[in-house]
Amino acid sequence: MLKIGLLGAGRIAGVHATAISAHAGSTLVAVSDYFPENAQKLAAEYGAEARTTDEIIADSSIDAVLIATSTDTHSDLIEAATAAGKAVLCEKPVDLSLERARTCLANSAPTGQPVMIGFNRRFDPNFGAMKAALDAGEIGKAELLSITSFDPAPPPISYVKVSGGLFRDMMIHDFDMANFMMGEAPVSVMATASCVVDPEIGAAGDVDTAVVTLTYADGRIAVIKNSRRAVYGYDQRVELLGSEGLLQAQNMLENTVVKSTTNGVTGAKPTYFFLERYMPAYAAEWSSFVDALTNGADIPVTLSDGIDALAMAEAATQSAKTGMPVKLGDV
Amino acid sequence: MLKIGLLGAGRIAGVHATAISAHAGSTLVAVSDYFPENAQKLAAEYGAEARTTDEIIADSSIDAVLIATSTDTHSDLIEAATAAGKAVLCEKPVDLSLERARTCLANSAPTGQPVMIGFNRRFDPNFGAMKAALDAGEIGKAELLSITSFDPAPPPISYVKVSGGLFRDMMIHDFDMANFMMGEAPVSVMATASCVVDPEIGAAGDVDTAVVTLTYADGRIAVIKNSRRAVYGYDQRVELLGSEGLLQAQNMLENTVVKSTTNGVTGAKPTYFFLERYMPAYAAEWSSFVDALTNGADIPVTLSDGIDALAMAEAATQSAKTGMPVKLGDV
Amino acid sequence: MLKIGLLGAGRIAGVHATAISAHAGSTLVAVSDYFPENAQKLAAEYGAEARTTDEIIADSSIDAVLIATSTDTHSDLIEAATAAGKAVLCEKPVDLSLERARTCLANSAPTGQPVMIGFNRRFDPNFGAMKAALDAGEIGKAELLSITSFDPAPPPISYVKVSGGLFRDMMIHDFDMANFMMGEAPVSVMATASCVVDPEIGAAGDVDTAVVTLTYADGRIAVIKNSRRAVYGYDQRVELLGSEGLLQAQNMLENTVVKSTTNGVTGAKPTYFFLERYMPAYAAEWSSFVDALTNGADIPVTLSDGIDALAMAEAATQSAKTGMPVKLGDV
Amino acid sequence: MLKIGLLGAGRIAGVHATAISAHAGSTLVAVSDYFPENAQKLAAEYGAEARTTDEIIADSSIDAVLIATSTDTHSDLIEAATAAGKAVLCEKPVDLSLERARTCLANSAPTGQPVMIGFNRRFDPNFGAMKAALDAGEIGKAELLSITSFDPAPPPISYVKVSGGLFRDMMIHDFDMANFMMGEAPVSVMATASCVVDPEIGAAGDVDTAVVTLTYADGRIAVIKNSRRAVYGYDQRVELLGSEGLLQAQNMLENTVVKSTTNGVTGAKPTYFFLERYMPAYAAEWSSFVDALTNGADIPVTLSDGIDALAMAEAATQSAKTGMPVKLGDV
Repeated sequence: MLKIGLLGAGRIAGVHATAISAHAGSTLVAVSDYFPENAQKLAAEYGAEARTTDEIIADSSIDAVLIATSTDTHSDLIEAATAAGKAVLCEKPVDLSLERARTCLANSAPTGQPVMIGFNRRFDPNFGAMKAALDAGEIGKAELLSITSFDPAPPPISYVKVSGGLFRDMMIHDFDMANFMMGEAPVSVMATASCVVDPEIGAAGDVDTAVVTLTYADGRIAVIKNSRRAVYGYDQRVELLGSEGLLQAQNMLENTVVKSTTNGVTGAKPTYFFLERYMPAYAAEWSSFVDALTNGADIPVTLSDGIDALAMAEAATQSAKTGMPVKLGDV
Repeated sequence: MLKIGLLGAGRIAGVHATAISAHAGSTLVAVSDYFPENAQKLAAEYGAEARTTDEIIADSSIDAVLIATSTDTHSDLIEAATAAGKAVLCEKPVDLSLERARTCLANSAPTGQPVMIGFNRRFDPNFGAMKAALDAGEIGKAELLSITSFDPAPPPISYVKVSGGLFRDMMIHDFDMANFMMGEAPVSVMATASCVVDPEIGAAGDVDTAVVTLTYADGRIAVIKNSRRAVYGYDQRVELLGSEGLLQAQNMLENTVVKSTTNGVTGAKPTYFFLERYMPAYAAEWSSFVDALTNGADIPVTLSDGIDALAMAEAATQSAKTGMPVKLGDV
Repeated sequence: MLKIGLLGAGRIAGVHATAISAHAGSTLVAVSDYFPENAQKLAAEYGAEARTTDEIIADSSIDAVLIATSTDTHSDLIEAATAAGKAVLCEKPVDLSLERARTCLANSAPTGQPVMIGFNRRFDPNFGAMKAALDAGEIGKAELLSITSFDPAPPPISYVKVSGGLFRDMMIHDFDMANFMMGEAPVSVMATASCVVDPEIGAAGDVDTAVVTLTYADGRIAVIKNSRRAVYGYDQRVELLGSEGLLQAQNMLENTVVKSTTNGVTGAKPTYFFLERYMPAYAAEWSSFVDALTNGADIPVTLSDGIDALAMAEAATQSAKTGMPVKLGDV
Repeated sequence: MLKIGLLGAGRIAGVHATAISAHAGSTLVAVSDYFPENAQKLAAEYGAEARTTDEIIADSSIDAVLIATSTDTHSDLIEAATAAGKAVLCEKPVDLSLERARTCLANSAPTGQPVMIGFNRRFDPNFGAMKAALDAGEIGKAELLSITSFDPAPPPISYVKVSGGLFRDMMIHDFDMANFMMGEAPVSVMATASCVVDPEIGAAGDVDTAVVTLTYADGRIAVIKNSRRAVYGYDQRVELLGSEGLLQAQNMLENTVVKSTTNGVTGAKPTYFFLERYMPAYAAEWSSFVDALTNGADIPVTLSDGIDALAMAEAATQSAKTGMPVKLGDV
């Protein structure tokens, strides 16, 4: 039974706490947070202890930590935890600074401790079934990938200001999805972005609508579309054209009821947001981490994977500013 | 080039006139109608001549007639046309009287002239593809058939009064569809029917909502649902459970546009009514008739098939009245 | 916190144990089973105690029991538990004997203890959304209900022999669904049934394929289709035609991936069987029971509801044998 | 009744001949072709006369010509026909040379004769319904457009060599669709393209897979995906995210039959290619041209529209070569 320390006690930490507790191979023993009362509340809910982050990292009986703190603390905590002999599952992104993330890798790799990055979408059963079909050769060789990823509504402007921008905060998930589906990182990134949803997002220096084209060494192409607003819900679709067919992972819907009236034939909306859509994915993500630690399975999303996605976000940010494509090797 | 006489100049006659004219192997030479001005109008539109029904039947240069007159004249016209050496395609139903239809078969069969009954739905490309998949063994052996057949709105009460009732007028199409899919007529018919759409239909002695269960000699079962009103359009679906799978022929929609808003995900309604849905079927029906006459292909829907469907309508009418199942051999 | 005793430790009892434990308002304290080792195993898994059924019923600290034993014990246990001052949630069917079920109601009602019957499908989110739309008037007045309910594969013949037959064992769920959607029990039941899936089922005196038509006092009609075998999975669909539209609750699918190749456009199969499809429904069912006990909400499915469904199963069994409709008032 | 001369007698000319003949307001009087025997064959089929192109243009009794000859003759024929006082419907593209197309506009505009370009997809009922919903404000303000346009199989290499390249030959349809949906031309074009389907296409100097991003003056973005090969059929989808929802025009399918087996749930493929998918669009296109000539309606797709699309193809061709975005004002 793995003993787990949870760093952070916010909303996503709560999701992880549920997954940790529900898994037969792990138990949540301690929770920390910047606001101790938050740690106490969450710890109480799961029969764990509220402690400081330092205490958790120093406790040699704790096997692994799950880092769900604010992004600017991720690299430091990864380094501290691995140095203390702990395995790590860290929420995305690794860091807002690509350089810092690379240093973090350089510093943590020698410890030999496994570090996994929380790209939860790889564990969505729909995208997983799509990847399995691709790997089984069901559509031949991949040629053209398309990812649609729209949020139901923009985050608060206060969040936008500290988010690192749409590419590092939101599209980073899609960069990782592209790497997951295509099996490697691209060579070049071209971003087109604008602010058409809410002028305040533009005033905060960010964009709310973006299209990014990725080119791969062998000529394959991927395109990612992001919008901060899709009023009908969380729109999360992936499609991949191959030499022998097309795979599409479509949205999950709130229910299967269809109503036909004089107004047309109406079905339910997509599940509302990431908590609704990806709850099973968080559980599967945790399960794969436990498997890696206990059964010697590979870490399915490594710190390097996290850095690849971050580099793509960096390249896209530059490309959107200059209006020119950016080679991934140049960031 | 087959020379065709068209008996009747109403709405459905117009549909047939188009099919006859568009076919490379047939030409419309004459049209008759109870109201000569209707015949003149339709004939003019297609470069044909308006004549009396007697003249058309007596004209030995005419190879075949299409009977699209009122139902009470069908049997007489089939007998007269076949006696005059003409092939016949007659609109459904053969007759409202099962006895008269049987006499008609007895009288016309000895002429050796082909008589086809216009069950257009057999020629719908969707139902055709479904039957082809069944015949190819794609779902194994048929076990349970279900037919949904709803009109968008009830006909005028004046029509209801002379229609012969829902079973002979409307469900007769579905009886023929059941025979087409199951490959034979059932042994027993049980009808449950009521008037829940419009009390005036009940006052006219008819029903507007009905469920009929058919049992076959080998234990297979079919169920047909009819309603005179589906406000969203013409609902025409067939599904068949077999030992190795399920086949469903779904509705055709007005277009493929889907709209997602805060209200849900809305697509187009089914095509409005039989003219919209079955226009290609009428052309294919005519084409199969021409093929039978010119290439020696089999008549795909015979006068006997028409009588089978009529017998089922008769049995269902009795069953709905008595509340008891009726053996097809007893009508 | 309600203290719950679980009578029975088979597969469905395990599902209930999960729901009881996961609910914040209830705790599983004791489990019994005909085979004590089964009770011990399940109890251990949920931190409960393995005891005898008598002990559980006699324990005044236990607030409610969930009865998941074999059907022939249901009535006795309902009577014993209610007499001991316990609320009851009992798996369907109440009993195989309609007479015994009625006695059970007569004996248990005077205790005033709430008795709920486990018709889990009422708590499926899809059927629930459909009922809510109906109750909100979104399709006007209900007219024609159609329920499709196919199992993926027949049960073992040994189970068939003690099941009480398809109508009491399988279609009883659909009878309750019809009552749920239509808001009342029908006046008449007409069953058509046969054995086309597996002759051994027929040899065991049962049927494997059935269509039942229900008629309501006001002319509304419902039709239920059952098959013991749908090789593509658990097919659970409900559709309801109303005066202003149609509602359809469609199947839930294993995932949302669609593959387009030269063979066509292929999506996932329905979720395999009732555990996959109805797991959320079991949790919601339990939640509604807890609500009823703690917040004074109504019991959503009463013992009377269970007797209504059983009476319909009895009527259908008779009807299938005689080939004649059976009035519900006559059973 | 408009008298029409058809220039060209190839496959697409045959499609237009059908539309011209079927329309009540137009009649096909003459056909010409580079190979006179082709003109004779097509003319005979429709009761028209085979003549030379010069004769048709010189014949003052002919009201309009439909130009369906090879692309390199379009500009000359538009100029000659308009100079001779004839209205023109010309197949796309106007020309492979943007400069020549602009001269053609300069030369033909002063004649005042209407010139329409045959972008048939604007007349597809699905895209038409989508545009109507957009114009009706059903999804608020357009923000992000996405066009998927895949051919079922690459054309012969001999055709690729003279086609002007994927952007001028194939994506030009999608450029016009973008302009149609967005209501104006973009300011900038960025193309990413490669050859992953067939190396011979690359050897011929062309690409077979491409993604083009269009940016509009107000920040809106469009993305177009093209592939020369989608083995499952002609994939023609458009989707548009707006401030209040999403519109999607999905593929038309060969039929509505769905088969569920142990292998999954399989539906029909998209209609195979442009003749199957867009046949109704060609008829509607012709009808709108006749309306413009006879009722004074606006020409729905002008020569300027054709030049806009050609300029976008030119810009995309340059962009794909340089790897840099190209401003539409610079080509």
